[in-house]
Amino acid sequence: MDDLKRLKSLAAEIADIQAAIALLGWDQQTYMPSGGAEDRGDALSTLSNLVHQKITSPEMGQLLEDLRSQQDEMDPDSNDARLIKVTRRDYEKRVKVSSEWVKEFAKATTMAHSAWEEARKKSDFSIFQSHLENIVRLRRDYSSFFAPYDHVYDPQLDDFEPGMKTAEVQAIFTQVRPVQVSLIKRITAQTAVDDSFMRAHYDEKAQRDFGVEVISRFGYDWNHGRQDKSAHPFTQGFGIGDVRITTRVEPNRMATALFGTMHEAGHALYELGVDPSLRRTPMASGASMALHESQSRMWENLVGRSLAFWKFFYPRFQGVFHSQVEKVSLATFYRGINKVQPSYIRVEADEATYNLHIMLRLELEIALLEGSLAVKDLPQAWNQRMREYLGVIPPNDALGVLQDVHWSEGLFGYFPTYALGNLVSVQLWEVIQKDLPNLDKQMALGEFGELLSWLRQHVHRFGAKFEPQELVQKITGSKINPQPYLRYLQVKYGEIYHL
Amino acid sequence: MDDLKRLKSLAAEIADIQAAIALLGWDQQTYMPSGGAEDRGDALSTLSNLVHQKITSPEMGQLLEDLRSQQDEMDPDSNDARLIKVTRRDYEKRVKVSSEWVKEFAKATTMAHSAWEEARKKSDFSIFQSHLENIVRLRRDYSSFFAPYDHVYDPQLDDFEPGMKTAEVQAIFTQVRPVQVSLIKRITAQTAVDDSFMRAHYDEKAQRDFGVEVISRFGYDWNHGRQDKSAHPFTQGFGIGDVRITTRVEPNRMATALFGTMHEAGHALYELGVDPSLRRTPMASGASMALHESQSRMWENLVGRSLAFWKFFYPRFQGVFHSQVEKVSLATFYRGINKVQPSYIRVEADEATYNLHIMLRLELEIALLEGSLAVKDLPQAWNQRMREYLGVIPPNDALGVLQDVHWSEGLFGYFPTYALGNLVSVQLWEVIQKDLPNLDKQMALGEFGELLSWLRQHVHRFGAKFEPQELVQKITGSKINPQPYLRYLQVKYGEIYHL
Repeated sequence: MDDLKRLKSLAAEIADIQAAIALLGWDQQTYMPSGGAEDRGDALSTLSNLVHQKITSPEMGQLLEDLRSQQDEMDPDSNDARLIKVTRRDYEKRVKVSSEWVKEFAKATTMAHSAWEEARKKSDFSIFQSHLENIVRLRRDYSSFFAPYDHVYDPQLDDFEPGMKTAEVQAIFTQVRPVQVSLIKRITAQTAVDDSFMRAHYDEKAQRDFGVEVISRFGYDWNHGRQDKSAHPFTQGFGIGDVRITTRVEPNRMATALFGTMHEAGHALYELGVDPSLRRTPMASGASMALHESQSRMWENLVGRSLAFWKFFYPRFQGVFHSQVEKVSLATFYRGINKVQPSYIRVEADEATYNLHIMLRLELEIALLEGSLAVKDLPQAWNQRMREYLGVIPPNDALGVLQDVHWSEGLFGYFPTYALGNLVSVQLWEVIQKDLPNLDKQMALGEFGELLSWLRQHVHRFGAKFEPQELVQKITGSKINPQPYLRYLQVKYGEIYHL
Repeated sequence: MDDLKRLKSLAAEIADIQAAIALLGWDQQTYMPSGGAEDRGDALSTLSNLVHQKITSPEMGQLLEDLRSQQDEMDPDSNDARLIKVTRRDYEKRVKVSSEWVKEFAKATTMAHSAWEEARKKSDFSIFQSHLENIVRLRRDYSSFFAPYDHVYDPQLDDFEPGMKTAEVQAIFTQVRPVQVSLIKRITAQTAVDDSFMRAHYDEKAQRDFGVEVISRFGYDWNHGRQDKSAHPFTQGFGIGDVRITTRVEPNRMATALFGTMHEAGHALYELGVDPSLRRTPMASGASMALHESQSRMWENLVGRSLAFWKFFYPRFQGVFHSQVEKVSLATFYRGINKVQPSYIRVEADEATYNLHIMLRLELEIALLEGSLAVKDLPQAWNQRMREYLGVIPPNDALGVLQDVHWSEGLFGYFPTYALGNLVSVQLWEVIQKDLPNLDKQMALGEFGELLSWLRQHVHRFGAKFEPQELVQKITGSKINPQPYLRYLQVKYGEIYHL
């Protein structure tokens, strides 16, 4: 029993250091003056090393070994059994990777990130090419630490979706791709929707205030969070009692703050809903990136882009932004915020096109790691798929292969979680609609309490106790399944575009 | 040579963790939502323990031992020799204190702080009494770890003024007390100064903007700092590239933000001026609390309450706060901001009375530790000295013995540094006036560049390389000496009050 106590104490210490790391990062993106960058980099590196040392220490290894027999006698779904399991997983993954690799990777990504920034600025892929080649090599080496594996991409994916296999993701995306490609073709054959009101000038403070009103109604508790400004919106928790969001407001693109705020609030509500019994453990966060994204996308899209939601909020919106939308009917507004328009940039993509941006990236990541695609041929492969899936070709690499920061930071295996999140959001939503038959009526009254309670009860409280597929199975009766999302897209856009 | 490298690497790690602790504390007082308090307390405690473990580790002890011979061959004023000296000092102090004491003290002060808050609210010393008795006992135990000592108060003082002795402080204060008591008697016999304009309503934002203009002219670099709001103003650095201040604005007390901002900027300029070669070492901060206070008080009082300063700034001040001071002449304004008025509350005290508030506290702290005063008799002893030194008696304990937070946090030995800081500020100022004969003219033109350069050259760049007495000796040719301060008071208030 003393071993378990010691494990909990180590886990708590690690969680505390990670909370400090989280704050160093949050501050860096919100309030830190530029002159603090060098010291901040050092502090982040020292604290990250401390966490790594604590997780991979011989003491931790011995403890996990000693706890095996005890674990076998526990209820496998108990917090204690799961703490051991989750910690062991992290321990085993980390000890397999050589510290030389970690150092080389840190150096390579630092340089690659600078090169990528310059390459994107000049729209010149050649500046980034050798750096990306280096990163691909390092990511392949990373996989080799986990050999044997079914697929070279499995160890990449597993870092973000614990337990999930490349073959599973490919099987899912194979179902999604043709349906979305065909849907987009049918939509773009229709007359374009008028969404010019979305590019009018919207006062910055009024935009922020409106967002605050919306997420307060969602149930975001300001005693346990706050909203600040940052160049790229994000959510950051420091334990489960303080989960903050940031937002970016663009005066001539009101969708950025409006839907971005709901999106981040969705992430925050997830972590704020983790059961207090998981406090200061590695389970005090989301089950995976996809599950996290399922929550942000649910509040952003299934709630925030629904007609029911706007039945309540549109009169308020019109009251605040009178000059911009006084002549825009609710029907036009709803069509405008749901306009489908194939475009170059992932982060600006609508619900119907977004997943295709992801599939393209996943396919390219896999091809690079398999070695079937050379980095030098990447821009061409990118553009070819853009034409095939979305019917558009980026005019330059800045708007194409260089648009995302992820690869420059060495993030491989991350992209698919965005699309999986979309799929899971609707898979959950189908269950929610059965359990809460009056949800549409409630949303039309600006009431979200039952929805939030349902999410807390079925998703949030478990934190990262269960692996993502395990949790989805538990809630919906099946593993991640794309059919609900495809049904949803076809019904929603069938109506909007009279298909 | 490898030992020295290892020591530097350990020092850097410790500095990084302390930067994270600093940020956790800064955020707690500026932006943290209330719901984050529990996790924040845990994180602070874990990181403080980590620092303690690293400083007191057997490896550190061995390293310091192995470095002895190497140290003997170094220039004793070199950064390397001083790093070893300062680290050894910290190591030796910390290893002497038992971990049981640390735990008991942490618990006692947590409880005492809550009790003090309640006691002050109800103005009932009895609520706090047993807690303070416990703290006095623990502080006495603390001293015993350092026996033999010349005086039981020495180990308390040494935590804030490295190397300084109680006898030195007493000798200094013995010179100060009668002069200030007599000065105040002569002043209070005069007609009171009219400072009613200081309690007019001043717009909050305009107050903040004016403060920003002032400290920008002082040379506070916003690329290396920022100003936020907090209940109690403070300065916090995270390494020497990012030193932030906070301020509190009171609409009907314009002095709070005006002089508070200059005060905190003085602290910040000190740490921002530390030589980069001391980065990520324990020397990257001020030499002591008194030296730190000498810098804040210099900018607040010797600069900010001078006539020369206001020759430049008063027309600007009148431009911004037209309705409040249009009819107030510069002479009246100057007399108003320098009004002497014995009062109950230390933090509101003017330059002529401030030190007496400190002497009272020092004498009581010493008496409590020596055992010549019982905690239960403290309120009476407090009031008796207030009458004797300042000619006023607090109407209740909330305005008397319960006004300061320090004792509830177990801080003994801290108070004298406030008065020592005042003394040092003028001791330095006399040298500065010889070195910069045009300083008054420069200030009257709003120019502070030469002053800041002088401070950087003679004070700031050394950080905590030298002990406070050593540094003051180096700059002024003598140890801390109260005579310059007493001269300054007599000249300044002789003029203002026509004594």
